[in-house]
Amino acid sequence: MNTPELIELGQQLRVDSVRAAAAAGSGHPTSSMSAADLMAVLLARRLRYDFERPSHPGNDRFVLSKGHASPLLYAAYKAARAIDDAELLTFRTLDSRLEGHPTPRRLPWVETATGSLGQGLPVGVGIALSGKRLDRVGYRVWVLCGDSELAEGSIWEAAEHASYEGLDNLTAIVDVNRLGQRGPTRHGHDLDAYARRFRAFGWHTVEIDGHDVEAVERAYGEAVSTTGQPTVILARTLKGKGVASVQDREGLHGKPLPDADEAIEELGGVRDLRVEVPQPQVARMLHAVRAGHLDLPRWEKGDEAATRDAYGQALAALGSSRADVVALDGEVSDSTRAEFFAKEHPERFFECYIAEQQLVGAAVGLATRGWVPFASSFAAFLTRAHDFVRMAAVSGVGINLVGSHAGVAIGEDGPSQMGVEDLAMLRAVHGSTVLYPCDANQTAALVATMADLDGIRYLRTSRGAMPVLYGPGEEFPVGGSKVLRRSTDDRLTVVAAGVTVHEALQAADALAADGIAVRVVDLYSVKPVDRETLREAAEETGCLVTVEDHHPEGGIGDAVLDAFLDGRPTPRLVRLAVRDMPGSATPAEQLHAAGIDAESIVAAVKLLVENAVVR
Amino acid sequence: MNTPELIELGQQLRVDSVRAAAAAGSGHPTSSMSAADLMAVLLARRLRYDFERPSHPGNDRFVLSKGHASPLLYAAYKAARAIDDAELLTFRTLDSRLEGHPTPRRLPWVETATGSLGQGLPVGVGIALSGKRLDRVGYRVWVLCGDSELAEGSIWEAAEHASYEGLDNLTAIVDVNRLGQRGPTRHGHDLDAYARRFRAFGWHTVEIDGHDVEAVERAYGEAVSTTGQPTVILARTLKGKGVASVQDREGLHGKPLPDADEAIEELGGVRDLRVEVPQPQVARMLHAVRAGHLDLPRWEKGDEAATRDAYGQALAALGSSRADVVALDGEVSDSTRAEFFAKEHPERFFECYIAEQQLVGAAVGLATRGWVPFASSFAAFLTRAHDFVRMAAVSGVGINLVGSHAGVAIGEDGPSQMGVEDLAMLRAVHGSTVLYPCDANQTAALVATMADLDGIRYLRTSRGAMPVLYGPGEEFPVGGSKVLRRSTDDRLTVVAAGVTVHEALQAADALAADGIAVRVVDLYSVKPVDRETLREAAEETGCLVTVEDHHPEGGIGDAVLDAFLDGRPTPRLVRLAVRDMPGSATPAEQLHAAGIDAESIVAAVKLLVENAVVR
Repeated sequence: MNTPELIELGQQLRVDSVRAAAAAGSGHPTSSMSAADLMAVLLARRLRYDFERPSHPGNDRFVLSKGHASPLLYAAYKAARAIDDAELLTFRTLDSRLEGHPTPRRLPWVETATGSLGQGLPVGVGIALSGKRLDRVGYRVWVLCGDSELAEGSIWEAAEHASYEGLDNLTAIVDVNRLGQRGPTRHGHDLDAYARRFRAFGWHTVEIDGHDVEAVERAYGEAVSTTGQPTVILARTLKGKGVASVQDREGLHGKPLPDADEAIEELGGVRDLRVEVPQPQVARMLHAVRAGHLDLPRWEKGDEAATRDAYGQALAALGSSRADVVALDGEVSDSTRAEFFAKEHPERFFECYIAEQQLVGAAVGLATRGWVPFASSFAAFLTRAHDFVRMAAVSGVGINLVGSHAGVAIGEDGPSQMGVEDLAMLRAVHGSTVLYPCDANQTAALVATMADLDGIRYLRTSRGAMPVLYGPGEEFPVGGSKVLRRSTDDRLTVVAAGVTVHEALQAADALAADGIAVRVVDLYSVKPVDRETLREAAEETGCLVTVEDHHPEGGIGDAVLDAFLDGRPTPRLVRLAVRDMPGSATPAEQLHAAGIDAESIVAAVKLLVENAVVR
Repeated sequence: MNTPELIELGQQLRVDSVRAAAAAGSGHPTSSMSAADLMAVLLARRLRYDFERPSHPGNDRFVLSKGHASPLLYAAYKAARAIDDAELLTFRTLDSRLEGHPTPRRLPWVETATGSLGQGLPVGVGIALSGKRLDRVGYRVWVLCGDSELAEGSIWEAAEHASYEGLDNLTAIVDVNRLGQRGPTRHGHDLDAYARRFRAFGWHTVEIDGHDVEAVERAYGEAVSTTGQPTVILARTLKGKGVASVQDREGLHGKPLPDADEAIEELGGVRDLRVEVPQPQVARMLHAVRAGHLDLPRWEKGDEAATRDAYGQALAALGSSRADVVALDGEVSDSTRAEFFAKEHPERFFECYIAEQQLVGAAVGLATRGWVPFASSFAAFLTRAHDFVRMAAVSGVGINLVGSHAGVAIGEDGPSQMGVEDLAMLRAVHGSTVLYPCDANQTAALVATMADLDGIRYLRTSRGAMPVLYGPGEEFPVGGSKVLRRSTDDRLTVVAAGVTVHEALQAADALAADGIAVRVVDLYSVKPVDRETLREAAEETGCLVTVEDHHPEGGIGDAVLDAFLDGRPTPRLVRLAVRDMPGSATPAEQLHAAGIDAESIVAAVKLLVENAVVR
């Protein structure tokens, strides 16, 4: 396409954005119109992409970080003949693939779900990392950002990560239309304000008029030819460009144009230009799964080991048997034990420093390229990435998250370091799996298992050493549990997981000595829970006592309820959990203060027995 | 103190850091030693602080953003005679005020809990905002940061906010000791790498040798005399400074020194210098609560109104009656309706742009100065600030959070914009209150109520208009509920909140027409729940059906369980909630697809009746 044709294509993208939003009665046409010329040139000249083969390894990757500009994206798909005009007009309707914000669940050309601002660039960095360090396929990653979202700290985590890794295969295009949702941005059209920031963070910067298609074309060329660092193109644009009644005006974010027909006429009418998108080079993925024999580490019963150690060793072993497993950590790999993997597989380890949003964003990006990422930090600090985890679930992508230092059992470091909200956070993520092992062999088995699951998988590990309860060969299916103590005389059932399993066993033994038999269930699979075992325990013992190193809300106590819904009879329930704000103390003191140690369990059970609450 | 005395004081702070960690057997002495000279000069020369009156309005505010360097902080307290040597040696023990990471719950001189890195500066910005725009007291805010934590995006959200607001009363001191937890930082001792970034973000920068007390003194002077912008002092330091066996060496983070006695000797032995800390100026707070008559907005029964509108109007009214109420928003005030407050009280409104961590961090900072902040964004995007909310609870500070656009009921925008994890997140926060109103008068009443509560208060608002159910005078105590339908023939109880209350009422009426009576409870107080009403409903109807515009985990379904713990009889439970990943659709289509509209409730109840699950 020549310059006049590119200009026409930009107008077509505007017209189709206006039409889609008009048909839907909602959406963000003005945010689409500002970036239309940027998109037109990218599509016609630079994006190497086979729309018939979205999984082509050589395809460039495009991420719409400003996901609300979805009409523009869908208009581009139409111009590329990936969708037809009729589908374009299904925008935002029930069961349409064209959602308000794009997701890869429904559209094969979308790399990652966007719509929560500031996430496209972090994920794009992950994709570019794959291209640079793993795939070694010559694709480029193009991320179209809004200017408003540059206020998100996650953008600067990504900027730091990208420049540090020298990602010259990554280009960020910023549509600086100066208007956010409710009014002007902090920096308005001051392109240099943004350029100074990106340059300071090690990026090559280009400042252009985003409506000058020749300047846009030159900027893309400059990005492609820049080596050793990522490039950001800061494009001065006008929101609602091309329609006088909305152009560069406040109060028109996220609304269809007041008069679509008039606007379309002003934009030169409906067009039906077809873009021949440049095709990708022949390419071959280097990381076809090479699954060899998995030689998991083994511990003998009676040994002592921390589950975080077991995690690190198992992950290193998994990495030896599978070439598609990668690991990331947030500058605490000596604590999470991801360092064991890093030492054995340095080429597949990604140090993300203290930037948990980028940690998870990069994991998502790597997962989109077929890698199986394990991202670890302290359980407490994964809360930093909550929105990224949520959006990963919207994407439907598969990632493994590992949170160490769970619960008050960490001891002296105190509440800022204690993960006591992590189960609530991860259980509430759509389609998630939540695992909480209590011994080393169980941990190793679960690490191997979780790698093959779908969606968000979470493993909760503990800081301190604990006795090994299970033999090396034992299996731990997801959705299962282990009954560790049982008799026909059980007066109630203690449901525990992780560190509290050991407390529960001690308590059961002490109670048995006093003639009180209790059942003990190791609920290592917190989501999904083992409904069958819990229901059987309820029927046979009548009362479940949950013991949890976590706040009372959203954890094991709530998880067991999943077994008793749909109107079936519900057992009596008692919950022992962390109700007060801890301070510093030894691990044993912490468990006792929280009322979740063996002594507390014994006391609770005796109270129930004495008050004849249980049979 | 003269230069030799300052040097001695620095050594004393090192020695006492080493001693405290040695006594505890854990802690971060090497991270304390790097910043000891920075702290010595600050304490002896610049920090204007009356340790006997920590609430003195004229006190400077010191925030230890690198909270793990708590031994240094406590050593400084000892030098200031705020604590004695015996207490110093209680570091990290049960019930000691000297926790592993400092919290204001236990120590009156701590402004905010730290230990999750990257949070001290955002909170410090909030404190400085108070000093600059509200208190107008001439205190300064000093924030001591680590270099590792500059990788956190929240630091750059704070940097942007501080420079935009021209906070020349704010000084960040960065202890660039080049070593993180597991190894070198990205930029090592390259002070200029950090200086370029801060300058680009609009800060005045000073680069010094952090062990040259005269250079430190000059840098502080330069910070104090810089106007119109915040200052960052980038100090080159050595981790473990002063003890050859640990100085500038890897692998020694978070560990007591190998030989404390030898180290103390190398540092010149134990000293007992006392610092005369500069005293604050006479100052008076300007914002003594002026509570006037509260004239809440009123709606008549049968009107239609969105609870987000009611929030905005009620907050504006509250702001008119109380001079201590302030509001913050994340660039969506036209959606959350915080704009109603902003228009009436612009001097007490803080636009935080799209930076939710900074939004909550600033709210925490303002709260430490006695303000009552309301911070709003979309419910979905509050997940971005999860770690800040968690740490606010560790601080024990009181803030109000308001999440709009809750649930699938928002309609076409799709899952990225839907808050369907927010109740799980906020319920699991220690000591939180979670409110979810279904009508405008209820919302207004709860806004007024929540302002006076302790801890984290969360209000969930809805996008669409809903009928007004309650009269303007009705009261809604926290921990209460409203029984909207009840009879002696109730076959079961439908427990709803927010948007599903209206669906439940429709369903109840339809069922009544079919001869099936059901009770309907409006559970507007999700935490704490109304145990009495739920228990009564359980006893009288035997089965509770919860209906929730939220994922099944951690929301209303789990909340009702709080009424049935401690081994008491548990009713049969049925949970209707959002189980699939939504796409775009109208609000009504969304509620139906999720199985939480009136039709779905009717179908579920009939199934229970037909299968004789309920009586």
